[in-house]
Amino acid sequence: MRRTVDWAEGAVEIIDQVALPGEYRTLRLRTVDELVDAVRRLAVRGAPALGGAGALGVALAAFAGGDVRAEAKRVAEARPTAVNLSWGVARALAKLDDGPEAVLAEALAVLDEDERLNRAASAHAAEVVLGASQRRPLRLLSHCNAGHLATVAWGTALGVVWHLHERGLVESVLVDETRPLLQGARLTAWELAQAGVPYRIQPDGAAAAAMARGLVDCVLVGADRITANGDVANKIGTYGLAIAAAHHGVPFVVVAPSSTVDESLPTGADIVIEERAAGELTDFGGLRVAPEGAAVFNPAFDVTPAALITAVVTEHGVRTPSAEAAHP
Amino acid sequence: MRRTVDWAEGAVEIIDQVALPGEYRTLRLRTVDELVDAVRRLAVRGAPALGGAGALGVALAAFAGGDVRAEAKRVAEARPTAVNLSWGVARALAKLDDGPEAVLAEALAVLDEDERLNRAASAHAAEVVLGASQRRPLRLLSHCNAGHLATVAWGTALGVVWHLHERGLVESVLVDETRPLLQGARLTAWELAQAGVPYRIQPDGAAAAAMARGLVDCVLVGADRITANGDVANKIGTYGLAIAAAHHGVPFVVVAPSSTVDESLPTGADIVIEERAAGELTDFGGLRVAPEGAAVFNPAFDVTPAALITAVVTEHGVRTPSAEAAHP
Repeated sequence: MRRTVDWAEGAVEIIDQVALPGEYRTLRLRTVDELVDAVRRLAVRGAPALGGAGALGVALAAFAGGDVRAEAKRVAEARPTAVNLSWGVARALAKLDDGPEAVLAEALAVLDEDERLNRAASAHAAEVVLGASQRRPLRLLSHCNAGHLATVAWGTALGVVWHLHERGLVESVLVDETRPLLQGARLTAWELAQAGVPYRIQPDGAAAAAMARGLVDCVLVGADRITANGDVANKIGTYGLAIAAAHHGVPFVVVAPSSTVDESLPTGADIVIEERAAGELTDFGGLRVAPEGAAVFNPAFDVTPAALITAVVTEHGVRTPSAEAAHP
Repeated sequence: MRRTVDWAEGAVEIIDQVALPGEYRTLRLRTVDELVDAVRRLAVRGAPALGGAGALGVALAAFAGGDVRAEAKRVAEARPTAVNLSWGVARALAKLDDGPEAVLAEALAVLDEDERLNRAASAHAAEVVLGASQRRPLRLLSHCNAGHLATVAWGTALGVVWHLHERGLVESVLVDETRPLLQGARLTAWELAQAGVPYRIQPDGAAAAAMARGLVDCVLVGADRITANGDVANKIGTYGLAIAAAHHGVPFVVVAPSSTVDESLPTGADIVIEERAAGELTDFGGLRVAPEGAAVFNPAFDVTPAALITAVVTEHGVRTPSAEAAHP
């Protein structure tokens, strides 16, 4: 599969994730405005993919000239929760004094690294999963999309599935549909189907029942921001899933490149959580499902405390929270 | 508001819950076939409402003549999990030897009782909620629809909201949208809007995050079947909600008429859980959202163990599980 986000003929080229699974198509983003719009409406999403998109956004701005730092700031602030976006912007912006080609070279280095780090992180995590659960083959549970499409390539939580599937160790994957935007039913299911891994889509509310029936050997999720103490911001619903997993003694493993770790924040209480528009809940494909005037509570992410997580795994292996920031 | 299910001019008249909230309309069901179809596609749903529909279905069959017992069996088995359906059928069928008019009279008695018992159960539950949470006014959380529309009239869990709202004790209700069929976003939100109670719709996955933010003083749900030991089958997602509530120390109260209690089943492990069609997850309003060929895990209900429940409240007050059936 091609990269989720890449540079082509002076533009940022992305797989259009709003069109999947109905249509597989790419979009060329030629301006910072187009890139910011694509990030906001989730045509490109997933924390590591946003790191790449952020770095390439600075390259777009550098070639366009003008106030590159102000443009870079707009890119970094297009969405607030995933730390990778501002991290990717900062990486590329650090080369600004060396000219646009140097900025682009750094952005492309971010892209190259991403696949390599995700492959390493998910290989480490595969060993963690095999150590945490004795059953073979494994029945895994996935929330949102932490696959190829959430990264530049390969994936984080789904990267673990690819490693284990290559070794014949995956029986099936239960896919949380992941409301409101159905990244599980649309994107994760599509990736699993492409890879020939058996899967079943479930409503998010069925995850606890699946655990109670003994259908889940391990939960695998990605992350949008990991704080110094090991708390994890990830797609809304992750926290409830972690509580249910702990209740059932099911291992709960978080997989992310180290660029997702924000050592500047002591705990998850410091993370800014994006609130998204009411229409994501009140409308569906142009069809109104809720009463007119309905208000919503629609946080895009939640925070799972480190205490509920079996392991946070990066390219360096299992991460040990900074001692000074650990929960007392 | 009119009754959710009633008898009119020789037919069963229901509020069409598939059309809400876009359109408020009634349907006349003149045959057992039409009634069974309406039950299966959830035009009438909710355990207590199904009790009334089941009883009226036997009246339809009795007036039509033929093998009334076989027809009654078809009605009772239209859906498997809510015990009230077969309970309502049995109530009406017991009068068959006295003729169709006697069957109808018994069915109408079931309808009359339903509102009375729901008002009593929810009044008891309101006192339980006020005792369990000190905050005034209260922020309540609702899953699925356990309102007027889930009963013949008044409601069970939402009945508690009506009692408390009359006393000015409700600040707002967080409404789980309740995938896959959105009974929360469509029906509960509509009922709350009609009653002028402030509410916000949330994705089911946001409930735990709402609790972590301290936004929930009590969770209120209905029930489809309560076993002798106090385990509760209810809409999928209820179990995960109960685990999250216990984790946060949030009271979790189940409200149902005693017709929902099935003393013949010792524990929730004995409850038959209905599995519903893949299309509920893979399609939305005619729009395909999942890849072609996607398999699903789509249980309509889950089972919450008694240990996670603060109180099961019926018209008799807080129910104490049968001693011999209680968890060891």
